[in-house]
Amino acid sequence: MKAPNFFSATEASAAIAAGDLTSERLVGACLEWIAAREPEIQAWAHLNPAHALAEARQRDRAPRRSRLHGLPVGVKDVIDTADMPTEYGSPIYKGHRPASDAACVALLHELGGLTLGKTVSTEFATRHPGKTRNPRDTAHTPGGSSSGSAAAVADSMVPLAFGTQTSSSIIRPAAFCGTVGYKPTFNRLNRAGLKFLSESLDTLGVLTRTVPDAALIVEELAGAAPTSFDDVGALKPRIGFCRTPYWGEADAATRAAFETALPALSKAGARIGHVELDAEFATLADVQIRMSSFEFYRALAYERTRFPQLLTESLAARILGGGRVTRAQYEETHDIAHRCRARLDGTYREYDVLISPSAPGEAPRGLESTGDPLFGLTWTLMHGPAITLPVFTGPRGLPIGLQVTGPRGSDARTLRTAEWIRRALNPVD
Amino acid sequence: MKAPNFFSATEASAAIAAGDLTSERLVGACLEWIAAREPEIQAWAHLNPAHALAEARQRDRAPRRSRLHGLPVGVKDVIDTADMPTEYGSPIYKGHRPASDAACVALLHELGGLTLGKTVSTEFATRHPGKTRNPRDTAHTPGGSSSGSAAAVADSMVPLAFGTQTSSSIIRPAAFCGTVGYKPTFNRLNRAGLKFLSESLDTLGVLTRTVPDAALIVEELAGAAPTSFDDVGALKPRIGFCRTPYWGEADAATRAAFETALPALSKAGARIGHVELDAEFATLADVQIRMSSFEFYRALAYERTRFPQLLTESLAARILGGGRVTRAQYEETHDIAHRCRARLDGTYREYDVLISPSAPGEAPRGLESTGDPLFGLTWTLMHGPAITLPVFTGPRGLPIGLQVTGPRGSDARTLRTAEWIRRALNPVD
Repeated sequence: MKAPNFFSATEASAAIAAGDLTSERLVGACLEWIAAREPEIQAWAHLNPAHALAEARQRDRAPRRSRLHGLPVGVKDVIDTADMPTEYGSPIYKGHRPASDAACVALLHELGGLTLGKTVSTEFATRHPGKTRNPRDTAHTPGGSSSGSAAAVADSMVPLAFGTQTSSSIIRPAAFCGTVGYKPTFNRLNRAGLKFLSESLDTLGVLTRTVPDAALIVEELAGAAPTSFDDVGALKPRIGFCRTPYWGEADAATRAAFETALPALSKAGARIGHVELDAEFATLADVQIRMSSFEFYRALAYERTRFPQLLTESLAARILGGGRVTRAQYEETHDIAHRCRARLDGTYREYDVLISPSAPGEAPRGLESTGDPLFGLTWTLMHGPAITLPVFTGPRGLPIGLQVTGPRGSDARTLRTAEWIRRALNPVD
Repeated sequence: MKAPNFFSATEASAAIAAGDLTSERLVGACLEWIAAREPEIQAWAHLNPAHALAEARQRDRAPRRSRLHGLPVGVKDVIDTADMPTEYGSPIYKGHRPASDAACVALLHELGGLTLGKTVSTEFATRHPGKTRNPRDTAHTPGGSSSGSAAAVADSMVPLAFGTQTSSSIIRPAAFCGTVGYKPTFNRLNRAGLKFLSESLDTLGVLTRTVPDAALIVEELAGAAPTSFDDVGALKPRIGFCRTPYWGEADAATRAAFETALPALSKAGARIGHVELDAEFATLADVQIRMSSFEFYRALAYERTRFPQLLTESLAARILGGGRVTRAQYEETHDIAHRCRARLDGTYREYDVLISPSAPGEAPRGLESTGDPLFGLTWTLMHGPAITLPVFTGPRGLPIGLQVTGPRGSDARTLRTAEWIRRALNPVD
């Protein structure tokens, strides 16, 4: 039998419920694997094995509280934890210990889950990389900003991890590390206790190895009904292939992967259409950058004014750029987003989901950059669910993701359709 | 000449700019007045006179940075400050010192303003009262949750204070204490560093003694253009009198005050119409309570699970009520709010503003309750600007407020119209 750290969350949850697995064994297996792999991967900002094992033993003694009972979760280090340091990826907060747990952490604990440790974030969940390497090839970036969460989950150090996305910070690292990333509909998970960057965009989500795992943790925390995946095979989904205005930025391997995938999806029973977004959608990457920068300048006002020397030059420059966006320009970004969301709702009446690239290609070589967020910006701004599936492989043998997006509030249908697509493209799994 | 603590913010700002007043003198006058009045009023959760005076002297030496330069501000104690304790109105956070300033505080400092101290909040900005008394009659509640901010500003202890509103927590205490309260359009002021209760509703705003003061601080912090009030007299506003579905809850004095005010406004040049909201609007108080309670349960998950014995019974009961609201019911509250906002936009095409009561009547006697938030709930949920004006007096000699509301994003026009209404009803001021 495979070691429990290789179980999906859904498998581990069922095994714990059946009495075939204890939380202590599961956490122990995760910690053993971490001990072996962490020197190379560097996914964790903080780990306290004794504390995690003690929590696991407590769960094993306690009555089962939910499907999350006994499951360990990695928590991105921009999310407050009272029992572990929270440094937001910045030396300004070295050793900082928040006074309370973020809502998602407290709810996780209440539901019987436990925090395995804090995962590495880029600086304030923006671009400047942390120490993490891509577990598929450690010479490559894991992507960002949820770098540690993506690497830890992809490497089977932990089945579940929280991530946050303002631009493409769940989708891109999940795609680069070859795992599932799920950015739910905006406002599906409570954000109290998140370090805010851009409150109009910051979205709490998860990194997992399977689509049902992503559904499991978000549904439990959101108080939503469980989505069934049993009958997914019977779906005949309507899929819109959306090249997006940035198709020219996708590399040859990514473009070729989609050209091969479309007939495969069609053969598996999907109705495929081609979706062209209108000209205003081509402005959305710039709109997302203006909106977020305006908010960065304000949300990080304390750090910007008190500790400018402890911000990286690239973040300082980006924040100052936000200071040059006028109020009128900022309000216009909301107007544009509002209009485009309404028109996109119309498009989604013809399709269950749209599919598009998760990133321009494989994870770039080197650890200096976390890669290009371009393919995430529009969907974050549109506030609907986005899921990346690790269904393609590029010329360097690294994963390439397929991004599935749906209309706001359609999380269950989007997850089911995503799982249908995954099975259609990776039937052996 | 009146002591500087009695200056409006606009007057003080002009006097400082002209070299006729220093920040040190202004802050000194505020502190002297507080020393005399605070034993009776109890508006402050934390005060550090030496620190405030040192900050004021620093501002007097520094180049002028904005209209806020040298002005002292009271900061409601649910807003994080790195240089003062922040206790969120709860013993759970006794002595808590946040690692950073909230965005509004850091921006205030950057613009040359200074924090005079922390003002009393009810427990987590909900219902359970703090120690503050109404400066108009200390046997009466100041209202809540921005109790200390309203009392301190109304009593001329400080010209400006931050408040927050989830239900009616700026409008009600301002009305009860007889001062101006301004809840801007949702998302006008950055919320990073606010203790979240209900992220779909929590709105940062201000308490001031004049409408131009309210405009001044919010515009500076929001990066919005200054609103001119010079030509307000020339307006011919279109005013919709909206009894709201709760008119029956308003007491006789409040109803009579409106019946007298309408002809006065008409005589002053306004076009007055009567606005009847449709039946769905009558559900909005319940909708607001369902939406906020669902979010309380999650946002306060840490406090609820770790320190249940340190929550008051009334808050614990309200939070647990939120745990019984289902996800589907919660999502329905957003659908209803969305529909009503769209229909209200239509109503606002016929009127510059709507006017309605700020509260059912004068501040109730006693300090056990902060009064009824009913007349605030709908407008908070609608996300547009709301301003309360202290233009009426009740049978006990206590103030009664008139609430002016406008469509989302119309803050400048709503403030100008509010100032027109104030002048029309209180021409001597």
